[in-house]
Amino acid sequence: MNADTVTTVPARTGKAARLPKGWRVKLINTHGSQVVDTWAFNATNMSECMSMEHSRSCLEGLMCQVGDSMYTNQRRPILTILEDTSPGVHDMLLSACDTERYHLLGHKGYHENCVDNLKAALAKLELTPPEIPSPWNVFQKVVITENGRLEIQPPPAEAGDHLMLRAEMDAVVVFSACPMDIVLTNGPDRRPRDVQYQILHS
Amino acid sequence: MNADTVTTVPARTGKAARLPKGWRVKLINTHGSQVVDTWAFNATNMSECMSMEHSRSCLEGLMCQVGDSMYTNQRRPILTILEDTSPGVHDMLLSACDTERYHLLGHKGYHENCVDNLKAALAKLELTPPEIPSPWNVFQKVVITENGRLEIQPPPAEAGDHLMLRAEMDAVVVFSACPMDIVLTNGPDRRPRDVQYQILHS
Repeated sequence: MNADTVTTVPARTGKAARLPKGWRVKLINTHGSQVVDTWAFNATNMSECMSMEHSRSCLEGLMCQVGDSMYTNQRRPILTILEDTSPGVHDMLLSACDTERYHLLGHKGYHENCVDNLKAALAKLELTPPEIPSPWNVFQKVVITENGRLEIQPPPAEAGDHLMLRAEMDAVVVFSACPMDIVLTNGPDRRPRDVQYQILHS
Repeated sequence: MNADTVTTVPARTGKAARLPKGWRVKLINTHGSQVVDTWAFNATNMSECMSMEHSRSCLEGLMCQVGDSMYTNQRRPILTILEDTSPGVHDMLLSACDTERYHLLGHKGYHENCVDNLKAALAKLELTPPEIPSPWNVFQKVVITENGRLEIQPPPAEAGDHLMLRAEMDAVVVFSACPMDIVLTNGPDRRPRDVQYQILHS
């Protein structure tokens, strides 16, 4: 197997990569405590994309664990978790941050956000997302309280923790090092950090 | 206030209706135990639609209750629950049933499904959905077990139970009387039933 060099996704930005069927990508929480909004698309038909609602339906659960696959909106597996050295907490419920989210939180002016990161990362591959799918918030901890409320808590992932994902079809994956610096998404210090990924050829 | 006559949505089918800002729609579980997959779109910009992930994020919760609004993918309220005579259980987690769902359940050949109902209902208004948003599964009961599994249980809504919803923008709403007859979605007898709605002018 060949491995590409490690690519850095600078804090607050996103990167997209082609991941042919059978290839793997190692997503590394380089400094710990950083959430990575993750998307995946069928490389030959961008309207087929990783879907949180179809993954929840197919998994009959709220979380994807080692050995499980995430599913597309056509109920086909697209990514499988082969390894996970983090505590295995990867939110499948909340929307990606966007301009409106930061405005509602009181931020004035432009704020980097995962939706714009998704669009910019795909644009570098000359691709356009046909919609903004609900993201897979890798490393994000969202607790469901007894009365059904959702509470964002600091991510338990530590420096160097990684996920190894295998593509189950020719895919395009997108990683956004979430720019959230107002609520606890990226830890108690609310400081976005770089993450890294490495593509492993089958 | 004027009220339209009551419209029946026959079992296994869908209907769409225009609901101008401030108007209300009463959604009636005519015979009880029937799930209604519900969508809403901004009537002047169909790419803005009711979004389960944005509603969960804005509500900071897994369920929408009387007095709460459901939100669009632009984080704007689109529908508000004014009344709910049912037990208030309306799933926001699972995908709409589609051809693939029935194939995976072992059904051979075509099966009516909520995604096709959505498309057909909008087509009668000469509209096309730009994407298939995650549905609001009104009256559907999905229980989260202790280990984070999702379990579909029979709907607790009884005959005549209703929801009253108010449009917060000029909207198009779509109701699909879910055709599921294999799992417990529509009750222990697995028999899809008609539902009804009534539009109330402000």
